[in-house]
Amino acid sequence: MVHLSMINNAKIGFIGLGNMGAFMAKHLMNKGHELNVLDMNPQSVQELTKLGAKTAENPGQIAANSEVIITMLPACPQVTEVYTAPNGILSGIKPSTICLDSSTIGIEASKIIAKLCEEKACHFSDAPVSGGVVGAQNGTLTFMVGTKSTERFEAAKPILECMGKNIVYVGDNGHGLAAKLCNNMMLGISMIGIAETMNLGLNLGLDKKILTNILNTSTGRCWAGDTNNPVPGALDNPNIPGNNEYAGGFGVALIAKDLGLAQGEAISTQSVTVSGSHAYNVYKHLTNSGAGLKDFGYYYEHIRNKKE
Amino acid sequence: MVHLSMINNAKIGFIGLGNMGAFMAKHLMNKGHELNVLDMNPQSVQELTKLGAKTAENPGQIAANSEVIITMLPACPQVTEVYTAPNGILSGIKPSTICLDSSTIGIEASKIIAKLCEEKACHFSDAPVSGGVVGAQNGTLTFMVGTKSTERFEAAKPILECMGKNIVYVGDNGHGLAAKLCNNMMLGISMIGIAETMNLGLNLGLDKKILTNILNTSTGRCWAGDTNNPVPGALDNPNIPGNNEYAGGFGVALIAKDLGLAQGEAISTQSVTVSGSHAYNVYKHLTNSGAGLKDFGYYYEHIRNKKE
Amino acid sequence: MVHLSMINNAKIGFIGLGNMGAFMAKHLMNKGHELNVLDMNPQSVQELTKLGAKTAENPGQIAANSEVIITMLPACPQVTEVYTAPNGILSGIKPSTICLDSSTIGIEASKIIAKLCEEKACHFSDAPVSGGVVGAQNGTLTFMVGTKSTERFEAAKPILECMGKNIVYVGDNGHGLAAKLCNNMMLGISMIGIAETMNLGLNLGLDKKILTNILNTSTGRCWAGDTNNPVPGALDNPNIPGNNEYAGGFGVALIAKDLGLAQGEAISTQSVTVSGSHAYNVYKHLTNSGAGLKDFGYYYEHIRNKKE
Amino acid sequence: MVHLSMINNAKIGFIGLGNMGAFMAKHLMNKGHELNVLDMNPQSVQELTKLGAKTAENPGQIAANSEVIITMLPACPQVTEVYTAPNGILSGIKPSTICLDSSTIGIEASKIIAKLCEEKACHFSDAPVSGGVVGAQNGTLTFMVGTKSTERFEAAKPILECMGKNIVYVGDNGHGLAAKLCNNMMLGISMIGIAETMNLGLNLGLDKKILTNILNTSTGRCWAGDTNNPVPGALDNPNIPGNNEYAGGFGVALIAKDLGLAQGEAISTQSVTVSGSHAYNVYKHLTNSGAGLKDFGYYYEHIRNKKE
Repeated sequence: MVHLSMINNAKIGFIGLGNMGAFMAKHLMNKGHELNVLDMNPQSVQELTKLGAKTAENPGQIAANSEVIITMLPACPQVTEVYTAPNGILSGIKPSTICLDSSTIGIEASKIIAKLCEEKACHFSDAPVSGGVVGAQNGTLTFMVGTKSTERFEAAKPILECMGKNIVYVGDNGHGLAAKLCNNMMLGISMIGIAETMNLGLNLGLDKKILTNILNTSTGRCWAGDTNNPVPGALDNPNIPGNNEYAGGFGVALIAKDLGLAQGEAISTQSVTVSGSHAYNVYKHLTNSGAGLKDFGYYYEHIRNKKE
Repeated sequence: MVHLSMINNAKIGFIGLGNMGAFMAKHLMNKGHELNVLDMNPQSVQELTKLGAKTAENPGQIAANSEVIITMLPACPQVTEVYTAPNGILSGIKPSTICLDSSTIGIEASKIIAKLCEEKACHFSDAPVSGGVVGAQNGTLTFMVGTKSTERFEAAKPILECMGKNIVYVGDNGHGLAAKLCNNMMLGISMIGIAETMNLGLNLGLDKKILTNILNTSTGRCWAGDTNNPVPGALDNPNIPGNNEYAGGFGVALIAKDLGLAQGEAISTQSVTVSGSHAYNVYKHLTNSGAGLKDFGYYYEHIRNKKE
Repeated sequence: MVHLSMINNAKIGFIGLGNMGAFMAKHLMNKGHELNVLDMNPQSVQELTKLGAKTAENPGQIAANSEVIITMLPACPQVTEVYTAPNGILSGIKPSTICLDSSTIGIEASKIIAKLCEEKACHFSDAPVSGGVVGAQNGTLTFMVGTKSTERFEAAKPILECMGKNIVYVGDNGHGLAAKLCNNMMLGISMIGIAETMNLGLNLGLDKKILTNILNTSTGRCWAGDTNNPVPGALDNPNIPGNNEYAGGFGVALIAKDLGLAQGEAISTQSVTVSGSHAYNVYKHLTNSGAGLKDFGYYYEHIRNKKE
Repeated sequence: MVHLSMINNAKIGFIGLGNMGAFMAKHLMNKGHELNVLDMNPQSVQELTKLGAKTAENPGQIAANSEVIITMLPACPQVTEVYTAPNGILSGIKPSTICLDSSTIGIEASKIIAKLCEEKACHFSDAPVSGGVVGAQNGTLTFMVGTKSTERFEAAKPILECMGKNIVYVGDNGHGLAAKLCNNMMLGISMIGIAETMNLGLNLGLDKKILTNILNTSTGRCWAGDTNNPVPGALDNPNIPGNNEYAGGFGVALIAKDLGLAQGEAISTQSVTVSGSHAYNVYKHLTNSGAGLKDFGYYYEHIRNKKE
């Protein structure tokens, strides 16, 4: 159903050239694909057109000229708008177009768009990413893909491999998003747990490196502790946010957004998520308090016992 | 300060021959040490004396004949009683005795006993373990040791190595316990997080093995997910509690006890532990409800969405 | 804008004759209004037509013959269907019709329906109730009304007064629902607090009536404690659920639904609601566990320390 | 067992002349009792001796000259020290002395002191207070009394009535403290609930006075909402902390201390207190963050959504 020829030289519409999208689009161009790009911000578009991309008036025109359409947008309203507006993607799309949405949005909304694409004989996949801006820059993103069949997954895979190194087929439409939200919920919980645990241990007089080492080699082991420990000096890696005043990393406001989506899914499915909802509230509070741009490990700084 | 000769053929008093203690005592005998044992339960004592151990009337008599005293008791009141009763350890102990308490008790209580030993010119270490009954049986326990100096740690190490494979010097008196309580608090939090995350993912239609695999290779990775996953069938290992109706493993009542101790320390040090206190309440509730003997991954079974 | 004549003898369409709706419709008939009723369940309709109400094929026909339309439906999907289906209310409605929705649904959905009514020159109010089945039966409900103007509120008030005794103007469209969700969130939190507090006090040896009396006359006073105390025997009132094995009262599944809606609003508005989200999870868990029909004070029974 | 004569002119030892104790001591003097006072702070003592009180070298001397001994101290270590130090109360106390401890301390510690008093043939009661500094100043405190018999309660009552207006017999030794801790746990939970509920409602566009009025006349009613509402302007009373930038009232650090004691009791009795432990963590965090002296309603200010 997909022409192999397109793998090397596909016509790709790319909408959403933010911090991550711009890097992703460049990787696709570097691999030889023809890009037709669009963004709210004219400068972002210009940066890509200078490199040889084309642009258009609106998403409908982009769609009319694309075999593959990739969207990388901040949240659900933008994705809905870009697809369903009078001159949106659906207004111009051709049958058999491969639609890949790498935005992180609610599952129901994504399924509705998948259905609308289906009605146009197009193939929609949710393909949210993990790996952050650094992963986008280095082409090392993980894509979690939800789509109707393994054939569709296989058709999309070569495109996604231009931008990432780990392309996972999760299941049906919506399942890529489900996997991402689950992972990030667990991540948010772990970070709070590690922050509270390290703070308790330090208050009890333990050496931070010794405690970190014990946790990391015992049953308390987790990514937030052994790779992204939020306590300054607990790990040697000089590049992690905990050793850089919580600059870079996974922003508090971003994880708050993902955990809010996860809570929405927990409401829909009547799933008990006490620690997930608590984690969401923690990051929501930090965001409200003005710490939204710091790495989410900032919770440690927030709760640690201060000297009087 | 410690005679090297004792490493191979020490006179060891061992008090507390429960599920773990009995195995630990046997390992010491197998390594050539002379054991003098005591327990509330005469059968437990008899089992060891048949193997060549001696026994005595009371802890004071045990102490009077020991170069090393090991206690492995259920909780603080027993440790206090065994040390401070009129015919307790302190009534009979000789100068320079090495006292190792592998019970999990509160830090302040442990420090008080350390001080009382100090007044008798003896060397007390808190040396709580992780690894459970299986670790005790196989001699693969981890010991987290809190004691006054590296010399004292080095003196105790050869004894502990008879019973475990990972002997960690954490710091001063009480620090072994602090490390254990911190690790178990993080563990308790992780398990709740994984249980809620897996339940949400399954309710969203994800395949349990695919979700498990994504979490375990991503930032949601943790021991509770990649080694002791509580969802039946999520991991292939047939021996873990999640694949055995939560039999064996780390009992709900035991982690509830440890997390209660951790909460006591959080109160003493004014440390914020929202997720630690929530985890404690979860396991306390499960214990109250009659599930105290099941593996702590039982929380998954407790919250999973049941069919009507 | 509203004919005073209609107050005494209005043509009222009433859709949703469940546990509460049937009583509400009867009160309107008793006050002299002409009712045109509809429900999924033919028996519910028949019960009303025997008393003199008319019925119709679909909501559109109901609307075509009504000056006032009242909906009392289980949840958002039913309200949306009843209003927007091809033969729904909006298909038949006449200008100036007063639309009153007493269902408890999400605020955004309610505002969308209000807007659709506006486009038909009709006046929509959200008018959710508190007081339960007993309040519906006795005509003592509280209505919390959100609508565009005090004029509209005043026009609706005489109708609502046929069914309730406390008709509160809260504010603009959606505000009636907002008030109800806020109140029920606080209620859900209070009940959990009282249940945990009473359980702690009883475990500490306090007499339940003495403790109840102290709380009720002190700063721990709340409705869940002084009017609906969940501990059997704490209050003398023989009719409250706590004294009747949690029969009757405010069902666990119903408060779970309302608190889920409140959590949805907390996500939309980035509002921190740690205790609200915890309360939601508690009632969700109890519903999942099969206790959805019991009074929400059942949480006390759920957590109280059981004898071994 | 108690001479009625002492009611009007008792020899009272009063130890602890802090913010509340000084006022309490003065009330006793005003009612005609002979006071013998002691405090760490010489100025506090001097203030009372100027008014006619005597003082002494140490608690033992105070005890030797007293028919009644009242202690009003910050926390458990001070009470223990004052009673059990070599020249503490127990060193000088005479048989039949009435000992009243109005400090808020742990129940077990209080029972131990009660037992030590018993061994001296003295009658100890825990008699913690509610009402704060204002209640102490105006003589309107509530005393919650735990003691062995109603006779003992009746003997203490006339003394306590000099300082308060509501003297409640709760039960055996420790029960006065238990009641106080329970009430304050519920209070701490209610305040967090009201703060989150009001914040949500305001974010949904509700008028603060309308929302407050609905909650206060509905099932969400509680003292924290109808008497001490933390939202500025929600209640008209100009004197409450919420209308005074959280000055005065019940300090964050004080409720944190009480909720920490409640958590200690929840650990001892294996009582599930999820919302109690969460409330404790909230106030602990605020105390750590430097807000310990503000009224506990400050949590509203802490979480409310700020403008960017």
